[in-house]
Amino acid sequence: MLLNSDLLDQLAVKTEARLIFLVMDGLGGMEVPEKGGSELQVARTPNLDALAAQGVCGLFDPVAPGITPGSGPGHFAIFGYHPVVFNIGRGVLSACGIDFPLTPRDVAARVNFCTIDQQGIIVDRRAGRIDTETNLRLAEKLRREIRLPEGVEFFFETEKDYRAVLILRGDDLSDQLADTDPQRVGMPPLDPQALDPAAKRTAEIIQSFLTQARQVLAGEPRANMLLLRGFAKLMPYKSLRERFQLSPLAIANYPMYRGIARLLGMEIHPVCPDIPSEFAALRANYDKYDFFFLHVKDTDSRGEDGDFDGKVRVLELVDSLIPQLTSLQPDVLVVTGDHSTPSALAGHSWHPVPVILSAKTVRRDLVTSFDERSCSLGGLGRQPMMNLMGLALAHAGRLQKFGA
Amino acid sequence: MLLNSDLLDQLAVKTEARLIFLVMDGLGGMEVPEKGGSELQVARTPNLDALAAQGVCGLFDPVAPGITPGSGPGHFAIFGYHPVVFNIGRGVLSACGIDFPLTPRDVAARVNFCTIDQQGIIVDRRAGRIDTETNLRLAEKLRREIRLPEGVEFFFETEKDYRAVLILRGDDLSDQLADTDPQRVGMPPLDPQALDPAAKRTAEIIQSFLTQARQVLAGEPRANMLLLRGFAKLMPYKSLRERFQLSPLAIANYPMYRGIARLLGMEIHPVCPDIPSEFAALRANYDKYDFFFLHVKDTDSRGEDGDFDGKVRVLELVDSLIPQLTSLQPDVLVVTGDHSTPSALAGHSWHPVPVILSAKTVRRDLVTSFDERSCSLGGLGRQPMMNLMGLALAHAGRLQKFGA
Repeated sequence: MLLNSDLLDQLAVKTEARLIFLVMDGLGGMEVPEKGGSELQVARTPNLDALAAQGVCGLFDPVAPGITPGSGPGHFAIFGYHPVVFNIGRGVLSACGIDFPLTPRDVAARVNFCTIDQQGIIVDRRAGRIDTETNLRLAEKLRREIRLPEGVEFFFETEKDYRAVLILRGDDLSDQLADTDPQRVGMPPLDPQALDPAAKRTAEIIQSFLTQARQVLAGEPRANMLLLRGFAKLMPYKSLRERFQLSPLAIANYPMYRGIARLLGMEIHPVCPDIPSEFAALRANYDKYDFFFLHVKDTDSRGEDGDFDGKVRVLELVDSLIPQLTSLQPDVLVVTGDHSTPSALAGHSWHPVPVILSAKTVRRDLVTSFDERSCSLGGLGRQPMMNLMGLALAHAGRLQKFGA
Repeated sequence: MLLNSDLLDQLAVKTEARLIFLVMDGLGGMEVPEKGGSELQVARTPNLDALAAQGVCGLFDPVAPGITPGSGPGHFAIFGYHPVVFNIGRGVLSACGIDFPLTPRDVAARVNFCTIDQQGIIVDRRAGRIDTETNLRLAEKLRREIRLPEGVEFFFETEKDYRAVLILRGDDLSDQLADTDPQRVGMPPLDPQALDPAAKRTAEIIQSFLTQARQVLAGEPRANMLLLRGFAKLMPYKSLRERFQLSPLAIANYPMYRGIARLLGMEIHPVCPDIPSEFAALRANYDKYDFFFLHVKDTDSRGEDGDFDGKVRVLELVDSLIPQLTSLQPDVLVVTGDHSTPSALAGHSWHPVPVILSAKTVRRDLVTSFDERSCSLGGLGRQPMMNLMGLALAHAGRLQKFGA
């Protein structure tokens, strides 16, 4: 795999060809008998079906068969970065998502405001989903009142709603710390645990931070404690430009996806108010870039909510916008997702993700409908998602021949 | 991949079973709507269809999805050698193809005679496709007139038409040199560049060679300069006999394929005048070997020419000869190619290659027609071509059980 991925870097060339990757988060679903099929089967998607008929389809595994990916690995695989080798902590993703300029001396962690009861037991892992304004007010208060040892700075930054990012900056800090978020209610937050001896001092600093935070937030009705997870340091990434000679634009509304795109060197379009505006943004910028990452979040959100009909509606909305892309006549148009989020499971799943690759250079298959079952008979077969970027570049004529 | 390939070596055993690999170069194609399908779909191939129906089929990726292979990597993968790990320079392939006995002190490069104008700008990268006779005359002249420093020998050998091979022999020579062939007209040949410091002396020797060659060829109307590419030293290969206990015979008419076969320790049948004679040669030698590599070049040549109908005719000719093989009742008969060469693209492509594996031991699938689309639904599915040799040996009963 890694061998093949280096190969792409060597073979990629700059041309005039343009590629669009439409990524519907959590795209894949599952059949729900009383609904008459999966979300993709039930949704009326004439434009996606036509695209599938003209293109070549498959079912791709974001990480490996059986592995349920988070959004990080799911996206890295789409862009041709090995999702295990390049996996990074949630903290770094969150920091990138708020445009925080991380340095190599930083350790970042994703923060949830939470609610604990008088015995210190977690009763709500999201603090009743407090609004962003409350979050901003409390972040300011934490920054003002918490003091850390000489030589260690911290940054506490609001993400959105109940989510925030904590960054520690100092010499010899380690990210080898276990989460303090136990991922369930009914027990107290965990103490920060060093996962190797060199992380002991960092664990103590985090402990001090959390003890003070609990005091600062004590009077709050809902957001009276913090849960930390995904401690991570910055790992340097080769950009899409360096690896594949692409000039990429990311159109994504959620911080994490913007963060991932920024890590990979994409330019980031300002947040759009809704999905149609994201498509309009792509059209408005079509002349200025040659690679477009267009991210739709709502397929995943409705899946996570267990809202089958809601996910169907998002799919139908996206379908209605497909002509906005096809009329640009991109050399390659890919439609896929970063993982499956079947509304039947109300969460991410391991099921492989449907893929359409549309280009003049495809060898067409027999698929005429864009859904999980049809794609399982597609000409791309079942593959690791890591292969997608190479396939897309090849169909765009942006890869040279390998070997004599 | 490497793990699995070592495994094969350990498990392979010698038996009476015979295997035939019919390799149609550039076999895979693409649909051309006005022709009514791909070359394989349009060709009448009743014998190949019957073989597909009795066997098990699939679509195999020579190197990796999206990678367009040269003939070298495509063939190494067929024989179970990792096409990236074992990739070798064009120079070594060309040297093997003319039966030149390379030594570890040698650096080989592929040569094109070319035409430059009075300003030294390349106007024809193939010197008007001079004939072999002219090539032989000029090679003799170069050998006679060029002098290299003490301790360095050179061999300048005609390949065919405008193609030749240059071999430098001496101590501490390096193959870390960039091509002097810029791969396009309108600019002068590049100077030989050392890609690492240890190659500096070799670069100087090549520079001296080229400067003298230009003087020697100055009076020629067309072949008045040389372009060098694919500098390479010999890499030792374990033979098919060592790895798989096979006694292989190669029947191939083009130098490069003969060269690859020789590298892998195959015996090489003399050149045959045409495709039917190649099949006859196999029959005549069927008792003396247990592995047969039968190479058909014309499928690729017609594909490269963009000649859809010509490629169809070659496929139909090969189909008519299939009974010559099946009547021998080999234990395993494989039909595949080293890569796809769709006539629609007039060149090698990344599209995966159809495979038939025919043996008494196959688990049959539903494929009844030998073409790209049918094979995409075959029982072998989509796999790396590297897996083919293991599958073939297994179906021949030449692999032991792994583990207790």
